[in-house]
Amino acid sequence: MDITDWRVKIDEIDRQIVALISERAAAAKEIGKLKRSTSLPVYEPNRERVIFENVRAANKGPLPDIELTHIYERIIDVMRALQKNELASQEKPTDGNQ
Amino acid sequence: MDITDWRVKIDEIDRQIVALISERAAAAKEIGKLKRSTSLPVYEPNRERVIFENVRAANKGPLPDIELTHIYERIIDVMRALQKNELASQEKPTDGNQ
Repeated sequence: MDITDWRVKIDEIDRQIVALISERAAAAKEIGKLKRSTSLPVYEPNRERVIFENVRAANKGPLPDIELTHIYERIIDVMRALQKNELASQEKPTDGNQ
Repeated sequence: MDITDWRVKIDEIDRQIVALISERAAAAKEIGKLKRSTSLPVYEPNRERVIFENVRAANKGPLPDIELTHIYERIIDVMRALQKNELASQEKPTDGNQ
């Protein structure tokens, strides 16, 4: 395979990754809704530890765990922001003094 | 579905994402090898633009494009480092003065 062939393959992989990240984001939004009804915090360090353990356990290379962790730190940051927005959008409007 | 159910689903999605990121990394390594034989640089801004366009075109939500772009910036950083290592590992050893 030449560089162009590999890039076609990468573009296809990227579309699959985007679909999975979107599916993951939709699930995170649902959890955001449930967190509001159960008053759970958005930031849960124990859950994040489980996510990183799961990711490392699934890693068969060629990326070292640390590099995969760097990618997942960004994914989790984005998902946490999404949950915060989800919670904020469900807040009752206030006059700003409550 | 309760929070536990959604988390089981997310863990499964994460394992699929890890498998695809690994596949992408293996392809990036192959490109790194080909870049060495063709003397192409690791950093190619035009190619990175194409990757971001492909990612945005594939995005059907719920994440805004900008958030997906943040994730992909990290993915591309990691892949670029991998290619650099691939190239470095193929360099002929020198005495440090060449």
